[in-house]
Amino acid sequence: MGYRLEQLAAACGAELAGDPALEIDGVCTLQRGRTGAIAFLANPRYRRYLAATRASAVILRPEDRAACPVAALVTPDPYLAYARVARLLVPPAPVVPGIHPSAVIGPDCELPDSVSIGPHAVLEAGVRLGAGVQIGPGCQLGVGVEVGEGSRLLARVTLCQGVRVGRRALIHPGVVVGSDGFGLANDQGHWLKVPQLGGVRIGDDVEIGANTTIDRGALEDTVIEDGVKLDNQIQVAHNVHIGAHTAIAGCVGISGSARIGRHCMIGGGVGIVGHLEIADGVVVTGMSMVTHSITRPGVYSSGLPAIPNERWNRVAVRLRQLDDLARRLLRLERRLGGAARDEASLGNTGSGEHHHE
Amino acid sequence: MGYRLEQLAAACGAELAGDPALEIDGVCTLQRGRTGAIAFLANPRYRRYLAATRASAVILRPEDRAACPVAALVTPDPYLAYARVARLLVPPAPVVPGIHPSAVIGPDCELPDSVSIGPHAVLEAGVRLGAGVQIGPGCQLGVGVEVGEGSRLLARVTLCQGVRVGRRALIHPGVVVGSDGFGLANDQGHWLKVPQLGGVRIGDDVEIGANTTIDRGALEDTVIEDGVKLDNQIQVAHNVHIGAHTAIAGCVGISGSARIGRHCMIGGGVGIVGHLEIADGVVVTGMSMVTHSITRPGVYSSGLPAIPNERWNRVAVRLRQLDDLARRLLRLERRLGGAARDEASLGNTGSGEHHHE
Amino acid sequence: MGYRLEQLAAACGAELAGDPALEIDGVCTLQRGRTGAIAFLANPRYRRYLAATRASAVILRPEDRAACPVAALVTPDPYLAYARVARLLVPPAPVVPGIHPSAVIGPDCELPDSVSIGPHAVLEAGVRLGAGVQIGPGCQLGVGVEVGEGSRLLARVTLCQGVRVGRRALIHPGVVVGSDGFGLANDQGHWLKVPQLGGVRIGDDVEIGANTTIDRGALEDTVIEDGVKLDNQIQVAHNVHIGAHTAIAGCVGISGSARIGRHCMIGGGVGIVGHLEIADGVVVTGMSMVTHSITRPGVYSSGLPAIPNERWNRVAVRLRQLDDLARRLLRLERRLGGAARDEASLGNTGSGEHHHE
Repeated sequence: MGYRLEQLAAACGAELAGDPALEIDGVCTLQRGRTGAIAFLANPRYRRYLAATRASAVILRPEDRAACPVAALVTPDPYLAYARVARLLVPPAPVVPGIHPSAVIGPDCELPDSVSIGPHAVLEAGVRLGAGVQIGPGCQLGVGVEVGEGSRLLARVTLCQGVRVGRRALIHPGVVVGSDGFGLANDQGHWLKVPQLGGVRIGDDVEIGANTTIDRGALEDTVIEDGVKLDNQIQVAHNVHIGAHTAIAGCVGISGSARIGRHCMIGGGVGIVGHLEIADGVVVTGMSMVTHSITRPGVYSSGLPAIPNERWNRVAVRLRQLDDLARRLLRLERRLGGAARDEASLGNTGSGEHHHE
Repeated sequence: MGYRLEQLAAACGAELAGDPALEIDGVCTLQRGRTGAIAFLANPRYRRYLAATRASAVILRPEDRAACPVAALVTPDPYLAYARVARLLVPPAPVVPGIHPSAVIGPDCELPDSVSIGPHAVLEAGVRLGAGVQIGPGCQLGVGVEVGEGSRLLARVTLCQGVRVGRRALIHPGVVVGSDGFGLANDQGHWLKVPQLGGVRIGDDVEIGANTTIDRGALEDTVIEDGVKLDNQIQVAHNVHIGAHTAIAGCVGISGSARIGRHCMIGGGVGIVGHLEIADGVVVTGMSMVTHSITRPGVYSSGLPAIPNERWNRVAVRLRQLDDLARRLLRLERRLGGAARDEASLGNTGSGEHHHE
Repeated sequence: MGYRLEQLAAACGAELAGDPALEIDGVCTLQRGRTGAIAFLANPRYRRYLAATRASAVILRPEDRAACPVAALVTPDPYLAYARVARLLVPPAPVVPGIHPSAVIGPDCELPDSVSIGPHAVLEAGVRLGAGVQIGPGCQLGVGVEVGEGSRLLARVTLCQGVRVGRRALIHPGVVVGSDGFGLANDQGHWLKVPQLGGVRIGDDVEIGANTTIDRGALEDTVIEDGVKLDNQIQVAHNVHIGAHTAIAGCVGISGSARIGRHCMIGGGVGIVGHLEIADGVVVTGMSMVTHSITRPGVYSSGLPAIPNERWNRVAVRLRQLDDLARRLLRLERRLGGAARDEASLGNTGSGEHHHE
């Protein structure tokens, strides 16, 4: 389905530069443009492809406008404008209502006519689906599960007993929500399982990536608020609370009862220790470990960049000596005593040590 | 189902403080107590909720007894006592025997009448199940798989050919046991797959979390001993051996032929290198990397706590200079030579360097 | 099925030492040898088992030949020779053609007679399979998926719409290929999903481990070239490009648009940042984080080995002081000024700092 460029400009709030009646029927990259498609330029490293693009139009920033050989939509945030345009030009496939005969539906389910239930799906007793919900092939919904209107479980998603999902969720294959939390009491060396009796509540407009797992709470619920976006292979332990509009990249592990604020961004491979709080608006960069509560917004890190192995091995050896090195440095400073006095306030052992909260 | 408080005291070995005939029918948290339910106070940070709790009874330590406004079960280990009480008050749902008509059962399977096999489960030839085994919806058991009595595969669990699981296992959705190990021989730059011919043996009372994977051995078996507890999204490579009653938190990766002792605790996100041994009773804290055998019990770490990014970036730069910094420090020490002699034994380059095994 | 030792010698290019007519019918370890089976000795730590082995023959290096009490195949690369021999002696089970009646097959699929489609598999419209393809139980192939001849999807594999897999792939249970990439544009604090419109192209002879996930591209395709081997629980983000014959160990996370060269080896738990390039022939050791492009082959690291926790805690504190320590060291050097002049060229602040690319 096509739009005129002026319609797209209006839809994404960009300034139009070029023929308002230009017909656009799809999206493309700058490098592999095609007639009738619109590209975008957000990351400056792709600027080199602008001059030779074969796209019919480009969404770009004001400073790139002069260099654009074709029509343009000019906006301070080309990626956001592109998102709006792409959603218009390439909407998700509509849900085709119907229940596949191989699906197994338990008693007392509420299934509006508008829902789609795929092959080999299993709905246990008392499942309640909102209008237009899509349950893909091989999905499994336990007793009493609720899924709000417009949500899509694409394939092979497991929602265990009692899990509640809001509206317009998008859940990718392999996701498990509502598995038991890792609750164990030690009984003279043996582990005794602590029953996991809480649930999982997921708000509206949440996306959950492939093979991500979210455990049910021990007593209270695990909570994912509205607008949270989870990438693939994330582990969310019992009683975690993730605030609204927080985005979490792949391979993150969040330990039990951690409470993450709203509008946070957590980088890939981060680990978050349990029973702590992270304030609203916190950014944690990739492969960091959060071990204490973070009370102020800002960017936090502890990931180490790879360097050539030979050099790294020397660093790792010295790192183990670091406390000793620091003590030796202090000893030298003390020996140089009187003369160093004027600098001492800058140089005492504790001067570099601040708590990061 | 309810119990009198005196029955619960006896069941968990706690001292009773209050009305022995008090009826308790469930569990709750301190914060959200309700009449008829029992809470527990183990982590001191929840002590502030004790005074106002609406629970009918609380399991707590002797030192918290005086502050408890309601009946109490007094014990040095409230969490363990709670586990026992909760298991009594909220037992797992009983397994309802029967084979769903959509399940596909191969020839020569041994299926006692007491087993439950859910919709769309697939059992290939020669599968043997013990009494009361639950095979949930969408589970797949390969040729010759054995599962001991009382084990429960909740949903969508894959046990590949020949995998043997002991009694009373609890296996969560998305688990894969018996996939091929990552065995590759390099043939002039191309990888030649080495057939993975071993099996997987899992002992009694093992729990395996959602989306965890356990590879089959290359020639001998991968072994998970009795009472091991694995959280979600753990990767266990071929020929790993995990000793009895070891607990491993989420997102841990264990490389091939690593041998982990009994009664170990491995924190979330830890990586364990292959072909090493970890003694009994070792604790590894979150996001550490174990690169050498550990021969003595104790706590081991290499995870770095996140700090504000601006400070961390300076640390990361200095870290790359660390070998140089250490050499410069040594040079200064040498220049101050004679005078430093009395301190030299504390200060030589190697003094901070010990092997950690 | 058995072979004479001389046949195995020829098949793996090894020198025969012993009876050429010796019958070998299987493989075994050195420690648990048995009559009729052949073992191998590649890792020197297993040399101690050689003298007492009960294997009928051993594949080993020339230097171990004298110590071998039984027949031997002598070669500089025993592991490669073993791989060849094991593949001969224990070939994978043949694919039995046929479509299980519980499989659900959409319209317009191309399914040669030689394919095997297991119970509860789902093929949507327009799926095209090559000769001898095996689609195991519970696999799901979206609209227009293509799988090349001889490929095997063992069980519960999801290939989303339009994914293309080459010939002789081996895909383990729980794999998801073609889920949406994590593309989000921020709209005044809310995340707007960016449609993920690219595909995934997987070359020939690729192996993908259990529960690994590979996202579709945003506009162009995510690409896995020929001969790539992926272990379990790897996350490959949108538009990643992995060069031919690269092997990646378990739990690795690769961010969007990263481009990894050919013949690389990436260790377990590594994280790779997006929009960077890694040259051919790069090795990254376990749990490192690659944050910048790597332009030269070699070994790169940033993983830290675990040490006793008490010592590690001191290191972690000092690490946060490191910038301060370095400044204090420089200050001492400056105070010792003139006398240090001859060494200054070795000791300036920047001397240890090189970019690692």
